[in-house]
This record gives sequence, structure tokens and C-alpha cells, in this order.
Amino acid sequence: MNRTSSRIITLLTDFGTRDGYVAAMKGMILTIAPDARCIDAAHDIEAGDVEAAAWVLSQYWAYFPPGTVHLAVVDPGVGGDRRALALEAGGRFFVGPDNGIVTRVLESASLGPCVELSERALERQDVSRTFHGRDIFAPAAAMIASGRRLEELGAPVERPVTLPLPLPRRSESEVSGEVIYVDRFGNLITNIPADWVLGDSEFTVKRRKVGPLRASYSEVAVGTPLAIIGSARTVEIAIREGNAAGELGVGRGDAVRGRLELGD
Amino acid sequence: MNRTSSRIITLLTDFGTRDGYVAAMKGMILTIAPDARCIDAAHDIEAGDVEAAAWVLSQYWAYFPPGTVHLAVVDPGVGGDRRALALEAGGRFFVGPDNGIVTRVLESASLGPCVELSERALERQDVSRTFHGRDIFAPAAAMIASGRRLEELGAPVERPVTLPLPLPRRSESEVSGEVIYVDRFGNLITNIPADWVLGDSEFTVKRRKVGPLRASYSEVAVGTPLAIIGSARTVEIAIREGNAAGELGVGRGDAVRGRLELGD
Amino acid sequence: MNRTSSRIITLLTDFGTRDGYVAAMKGMILTIAPDARCIDAAHDIEAGDVEAAAWVLSQYWAYFPPGTVHLAVVDPGVGGDRRALALEAGGRFFVGPDNGIVTRVLESASLGPCVELSERALERQDVSRTFHGRDIFAPAAAMIASGRRLEELGAPVERPVTLPLPLPRRSESEVSGEVIYVDRFGNLITNIPADWVLGDSEFTVKRRKVGPLRASYSEVAVGTPLAIIGSARTVEIAIREGNAAGELGVGRGDAVRGRLELGD
Repeated sequence: MNRTSSRIITLLTDFGTRDGYVAAMKGMILTIAPDARCIDAAHDIEAGDVEAAAWVLSQYWAYFPPGTVHLAVVDPGVGGDRRALALEAGGRFFVGPDNGIVTRVLESASLGPCVELSERALERQDVSRTFHGRDIFAPAAAMIASGRRLEELGAPVERPVTLPLPLPRRSESEVSGEVIYVDRFGNLITNIPADWVLGDSEFTVKRRKVGPLRASYSEVAVGTPLAIIGSARTVEIAIREGNAAGELGVGRGDAVRGRLELGD
Repeated sequence: MNRTSSRIITLLTDFGTRDGYVAAMKGMILTIAPDARCIDAAHDIEAGDVEAAAWVLSQYWAYFPPGTVHLAVVDPGVGGDRRALALEAGGRFFVGPDNGIVTRVLESASLGPCVELSERALERQDVSRTFHGRDIFAPAAAMIASGRRLEELGAPVERPVTLPLPLPRRSESEVSGEVIYVDRFGNLITNIPADWVLGDSEFTVKRRKVGPLRASYSEVAVGTPLAIIGSARTVEIAIREGNAAGELGVGRGDAVRGRLELGD
Repeated sequence: MNRTSSRIITLLTDFGTRDGYVAAMKGMILTIAPDARCIDAAHDIEAGDVEAAAWVLSQYWAYFPPGTVHLAVVDPGVGGDRRALALEAGGRFFVGPDNGIVTRVLESASLGPCVELSERALERQDVSRTFHGRDIFAPAAAMIASGRRLEELGAPVERPVTLPLPLPRRSESEVSGEVIYVDRFGNLITNIPADWVLGDSEFTVKRRKVGPLRASYSEVAVGTPLAIIGSARTVEIAIREGNAAGELGVGRGDAVRGRLELGD
């Protein structure tokens, strides 16, 4: 059963804003759903970086009220044979290409109804081959925000595509994982869960020591690396008032380790 | 006769967002028209690039509901003798400097009422010499969104300034035009209309062959250039999952040609 | 006594948009205050640049309707011992870290009620150590926008932290000050008030002459430096259709002088 829409539609894309593409999507939404409330999430995802988009979506979707429609269009396969989806999970709706963009949503929420959007159900003629954000996804989001049921928008889909996610590991004396996202500040967000962290672990990133877990940035001097629990409740490697990615030369995929130091 | 406003005001500027200029415009709008709905279109147009702004505006204006007010302020002539305009075309309102920014709107919609905004009619004192976006255009947009008739905001203007637009050409064996816009992805948008394209045309851009028109990106390998009908319904030169402008060294104004290849 | 909220919440941060942090704040706001209207002010303040944020906030806060909640989170000291504040000044509300971000608001408006936000009063559990924008400030803004009184959100604070501001000087024959902000266009905004400017002053910036005060950009040729009264009603050094900061090699803190030239 579908929940009632909150009339909120968030927009996540890699379109940037300067070309008017996002504006066209907003216009399409407001024409179909005049009462919808368009909320910009992000439009500066690196072009085609579905993995980053999946991460970013996971950082905000659950903070919105139930019934929110999350439009997420990072779509390097536009015009090819990837499916266009609308689905419900965790009480919110998600609309976008079937390329794994909802992977991290489905890590923490179970899948509700899921349909493959049909151009006929959306009553779209003249769908472009390059811009489904405007011609398929925005109309679908608007229709859902207007109260249309998912089942009216296309045929059921068993399971959306999901991306393989790197898994952290732990033993009695060590936790290890990798950098899964680098944010604007150069913070290195890892997949090591906060509650896995061992008491006096010493963290290393790409073999460089960054010390024990700190409770706040202010525990180290400005310019010093540290490990801290980030806002996603995983271990994060940062430099106080600095850029860890740049200064340590570390990026997505690099190894991070927390080891109990028993004196050596 | 003016249409009723939809209370939607879109904002297109070259102000960026980081200096608070756009925020000041939004504040001015919401003070004058508390029920207005501010929708960001784009604020990262290159400084003073009226031609780009005219293109971008053309990509979204008609997707918004009738009655929408499109505020478009890329205004290198601020404080000089260029006029400040408000006009109606295609059922929407447009507010901005009279420097050609509405050129592409007026290509596809006929001009309705058009007035030169008067500081007296806008009841503005203390108008700055450098920021008419805040002091003239935002108030005008807000008043229109509140239901004020254009005729109340200034004296009629016969015809707004328009930019000269490069025209495509065609013969029996060839269509030709030029790159009129480069988008964020490096796609080269041309002025060659989709319905001019000849059956088996081979496209060239700046003398480099990019093959026949494709129905989707996925018809070529990743990294390969192609010609495709873009979201503006003109020929676009792209590189699948790449940046055509950068990799081909092509920019605005460069020639594009589609020629029937009769075997050579 | 608190004013009624306008349900408008503006957002100023240095978070960028690409990581989903701002989106999480918007979600938090809309969950707590479903009728709030989120207005993006700026998210591209340079990381940790409280001084710039204070300037930018001063450019727009007073243009919004009374009762607006201005959320301003540039917060290099997050997780440390800086206080989290909500206050009223000039009929608007301000929510953010106590690090001087409201300095320029309090230059022109007198301080009303001011409280230190308490996690208990905000009913937040599980506050992260790195993201008070989402976990403290957004909830506080939403509660204020919903009509909660400041006094309910924490204990009174006597006086927020303010930044030391460089003061301009004047004599009978000279005004002097410095560049306090460089905007996106490279305009050099100074702290010399418009009404201090002497009749035929010749301006210099970092010892380079830029001529007398001009009434509009169009008084000089394209590419030429000039002095003009900017939108903040102070002297601004610009280059017509150019970037003064870049081309003159001038930045924040550099000296600007206007001197009566008596023939030499």
C-alpha cells in the first residue's frame, strides 16, 4: 500500500545547474503537480558517478518526512536499455534509473512496491533519447507527489539493480575497511561502523598513522590528521581545518585500518 | 490581457550564490510577495554571457505553468542606459535587462505586452547603480507574481533587443550549422534542427568525422564521439561517457556539417 | 517578545551541496516543521571562512520579511566548546555557531533575546560530533519557524562572540579603508561608506590609481578599473566587464584610499 505523498520532491542529479536542465525538470514537475515543493538536494555529483550518488542519497533520504519523493537521476545509460524505476522503501518514494542509485537506501530499508515506468502510463509523447530526467523521471515524481499509486505507473519489477558494496572486516585486534566517499572538505568517509571500533585502536590510512579515535576535531591541533565518528556513524579520517584527501593523497577505495596497539 | 500569475518565480543569474546577491533578491521577492515561490533555475552562467543565458532560458521557460514569472538577470550593462523590461510571451512573464536575454524565447513565442520598468512605478527609492537584480528586477517580478498588471509597471516598449542568431543551412545533400552551446557534460549543442537531418548523413565537427546520427549513446562504445538528437530537438555532438568539447577541442561557434555520403 | 515566524528559513553554509549535507538539514527542517519554506542562500562559502559568511549574511538578512529564520552554519569549531546560539535581531531570527557569524548583523541591528541551544530542549538524542548543522541548528531553526519561543530552546546568553572589524578612517583630505570582501566577479568591496566619499577623490588600491568615483560602470571603457558605490553602499573597486581582484592582484585586507587631488 502506498503512503500519502508529502508533496515534497527532492532532486539529486549530475546535471549541474548552469544548463537549465534541472530547471526544465522543475518546470515539468510544477506543471503536472502545481502544489509540489521542489527541494534541491545536489546537482553537482560528478558526471556519471552513480556510486557517489548512491552514497549522497543515503545521507539525506530518511531525514525527510514519510511520503517524500526522492528523484535521483545520475544516468550515464540514458537512452539505452536500463530500466526507469519508481519504488517505495522506508516510507519514502524513489524515482530514477535502474542503475544502482538506490543501493544504499535498500541496505537500510526494505523494498516496497517497485515498478518499471512506462511512457504510456506517464502519458508522455516525444520522449527525448538523452534527457529522461525531464521527460520520464520528473513526470513520474510529480504524479506520485500528486497521489498517483506506483502500480498505475508501470509493471512490477522484482528487484532493482544494486551495486556491489565493499564490506568492512573485523577480528579481535583489528577493524578494516576502505574509503567509500570523499566529501567537499576532503574528509575520508569509511565503511567501518562506529560500533565496531575497538577501545584504543590506532588508525592507519594507506599505511599512514592517524592516531586513535577522537571525540572531536578540537582534540588535535589545527592541521593534524585524526580519526573521528562522522555524521554517517562510520569512521572518518579528517585533518582539522584541512583537507585530508588532498594532504594525505588518499581517495575512494583506499584501505583504512584500526588496530589495537599492544605496545611494540 | 495579462494571465493570472502562478506565483512561481524562477531565477536565472550570473551572480553565483556565494556572495548573497541571489539571497537578497529572494528576500526582496518574499517581502513584496509573501506567497511567491522562488525556484532557482541557474546562477552559474558565465559572468556577462548573455548569449548563454538566452540559450539556457530557452531550455526551461515553456516547461513551467502558464503565469510563471521568469526572472533573468545577466546584466553586464547595469547602471548604463540599457532598459529594464517586463514582458509577456507564450503565456509566461519575463523580467530582466533589455540586452537580448529573451531572444530565444521570442523565436518560439510571440511577444505580448512589454514595458520598460520605471523606478517610480516600482516604488523603489535608493536604487543602487550596480545591482538592479535586487532593486528593480526582483521587485518587478514580485509585483507581477502578486497580480500587478505589466501596464502598471512602466511605459510600453515596441520591441525588446534581440541577439543575432546564427542560422543553419541546408541543401539536398548537406545540412550545416554551428555549435551554439556547450553544456556541463561537454556536449556540443548545434542549431541544426532534428527534422532537417538527412537519412544517412555523416556528421563532421570542425572537419572531424563523428559518424551518422545515432538513436542513443549506447549505440557507440564508451569514449566514442557520436551525433544524436539532443533534448532541445537539435543535433548534438557528444562522446559517450566523455566530454566532446574538451576531447575534440570544439567550442561555441565551430562549424558542424551533416553530409549524405554517396560512397567516395 | 518574539515576533511571529514567517515560516521562511534561509540556509547559509560552507557545506557545498554535493555531499547531501544540506539536503539532510532540509529534511530535518521539513520533518519538524512541515510548513517551513527552505530558501537556499549560499552553500559555497569557502570552508571555514566565518568572516566571509558574516559579510554574506549581512547582504541579505534584512531583505527578508520580519520573522524569517536565518540559519547560518560555517562552523570550523563544531564538536568543540563553542556555543550553539539562536537569537533575535532586527526582527529576524538567527541560528548558528557562536563564532562571530552574526557580527555584521549586530553592527546594524540591536540584539534581542539570545539563547544557548540545549540538546535537551531540542529533544535531540544521538547528536553527531561533526554535523551540528543537521543535528542542532536545523532542528532549532525548524522549531522557531514553528512558533517555539527562543526562551524554550536554551538558557539566555549575554552577548554572542563578534569578530573584530577593520574600521575605515577619514580626514579632511582623505578617506581610507580596506578590501573586506571579494565577490564572484572579482569586485573589491571596501569598508569605506558611500557617504564619506569626498567630492573629487582619486582612489588608489594597493597604490594603484583607479580614478575618481564613477556613477556607473559605463562611464569607463571595458577593461578599465573604476571606483563605484556598490550594492552594500560602500566604495567598491571594479574593472568594467573584468575581474579586479585577479587583474589588479588585490585581495581581502589590502588598503584602499580616496584622496582629494589638489593638483600636484
